[in-house]
Amino acid sequence: MTAPNSRAPQLTVVGTVALDDVATPSGAANAVLGGSATYFSVAASLFTRVGLVGVVGEDFPRPFRDLLAARDIDLSCLEVAAGRTFHWAGRYDGAMNAATTLQTDLNVLATFSPSLAPAHRRSPYVFLANTAPAIQLAVLSQLAPPDGGAARLVVADTMNLWIDTARDGLLEVLGRVDGLLVNDEEARSLARERNLITAGRKLLTYGPRFVIVKKGEHGAFLFGRDRSYALPAYPLEDVRDPTGAGDSFAGGLMGALAGSGRTSTADVARAMLYGAVTASFAVSTFSLDALAAVRRTDVEARAEELRRFVTL
Amino acid sequence: MTAPNSRAPQLTVVGTVALDDVATPSGAANAVLGGSATYFSVAASLFTRVGLVGVVGEDFPRPFRDLLAARDIDLSCLEVAAGRTFHWAGRYDGAMNAATTLQTDLNVLATFSPSLAPAHRRSPYVFLANTAPAIQLAVLSQLAPPDGGAARLVVADTMNLWIDTARDGLLEVLGRVDGLLVNDEEARSLARERNLITAGRKLLTYGPRFVIVKKGEHGAFLFGRDRSYALPAYPLEDVRDPTGAGDSFAGGLMGALAGSGRTSTADVARAMLYGAVTASFAVSTFSLDALAAVRRTDVEARAEELRRFVTL
Repeated sequence: MTAPNSRAPQLTVVGTVALDDVATPSGAANAVLGGSATYFSVAASLFTRVGLVGVVGEDFPRPFRDLLAARDIDLSCLEVAAGRTFHWAGRYDGAMNAATTLQTDLNVLATFSPSLAPAHRRSPYVFLANTAPAIQLAVLSQLAPPDGGAARLVVADTMNLWIDTARDGLLEVLGRVDGLLVNDEEARSLARERNLITAGRKLLTYGPRFVIVKKGEHGAFLFGRDRSYALPAYPLEDVRDPTGAGDSFAGGLMGALAGSGRTSTADVARAMLYGAVTASFAVSTFSLDALAAVRRTDVEARAEELRRFVTL
Repeated sequence: MTAPNSRAPQLTVVGTVALDDVATPSGAANAVLGGSATYFSVAASLFTRVGLVGVVGEDFPRPFRDLLAARDIDLSCLEVAAGRTFHWAGRYDGAMNAATTLQTDLNVLATFSPSLAPAHRRSPYVFLANTAPAIQLAVLSQLAPPDGGAARLVVADTMNLWIDTARDGLLEVLGRVDGLLVNDEEARSLARERNLITAGRKLLTYGPRFVIVKKGEHGAFLFGRDRSYALPAYPLEDVRDPTGAGDSFAGGLMGALAGSGRTSTADVARAMLYGAVTASFAVSTFSLDALAAVRRTDVEARAEELRRFVTL
């Protein structure tokens, strides 16, 4: 048994790093830092040391890499491939409940095959951000037991594209993870149930011991085998760009869990509060402007505010 | 100072009693008991003695009157007028988030002018269900101080029709009530603010010391001068007919407050739990089938379940 390495990432995320063009009723931003693993890592880095597994192109701006490094995020598994960085362009209208995708250029992501360093393979906390189930399975097969016999918590995200086109692979992933994080439409679609409560409970039968259903401005539901929990969103008056809300929620959630070393369903419920808070910072500005500037004390203050808001 | 009369209604509601035709994805029901004051009264009667102020036509079926009387609801101010009972026909589609009104026949409601009996005028708790602001003002002008110097709590509901066509009268109502109960669209429309949090806080400046914004399956927000509170809805797997959900919420809320004799914003927050529970019973069947059969012990059991669901 080797002693745990304090510089080894406690929490490893596999996902996308992107350059985004985003337009919302509040304005627009072009060629800004985006991607699921990016939002996740920056949110989670408030609580623990994160390892980011992903790929960028040779065009990936140095300041963006510096931003991630400044949060002490382990970038040793952030591959730099020949070609251009993954690019997403989207627009939010009206109440900003859903993005309209205008363009997706996979670029270096098209041939990406994640390879985890030994320290990442032993991370006690692992988040599989939304990617093809085949890639999520490839990551799962690389995982090794954490140092010191620590408990492991693996949570996966997904999206309607994979629910519709790679259902079998996705079900295989669900049989091998502890938790699933989806939004309300994805939950309904994956469970093939119209009622969200019925859908959430049914997803538990696919394998994970808990399912979190994100409902945007309406908060999130947790379904566990032993208990359920409903958390309203942080009451934010000024939403400027919803991009990354779900990934920031996941980062706050998993970061808080990794920081505490806990994994029970009740711990997951408590960690949702931090997910709601990091998401609220993320959507208050474009890209990661607010999230990257936030300190742990800001997070704790807003978490206390949210706790009061939801406590009788 | 006269001794309080234990048979006098502690809670008086002024609103509609209707015969409804309703179709939802779960089925259809014709000429069933409906109306804002009906749902409200039956829900509130679980907690306290209710006085119902309204009007029906000569066609109002005896079994419906008996149903209300069996809940010990004071019907001395339920006028029987020449003509037919108010009739509403509506349909809910898909996720049943909003009703499509197919027909509205005001009938006896067209000339209704509420007249409160002396005992009703002194009710410590008063709910002005959704009607024309002129009628709500007429009721307010009839109120007399409660017996024994008890505190009074007056809460009003409204709808987009009055927000659009009788805004001045509605603002006069808001200047004279303690609380406002609206749904999310009404809150945005009345406050002229897109963001729901901004809207809810702005409505406080119109007069009431608290505003509750109902969000259907997403629960309800409370905005008060001293505190705010967010409550998710009771997690119901089988919604058959959303008609009366808001009025049943109001009835559970006001009934629980009247039953406890309390009126602070914190008390209102706690009473929202009962509103969510009575609404959950109401929508589980057509018309008042479930709500009228519920006992206080069923309500307390579901309230405890909801309390666990929202407690970390």
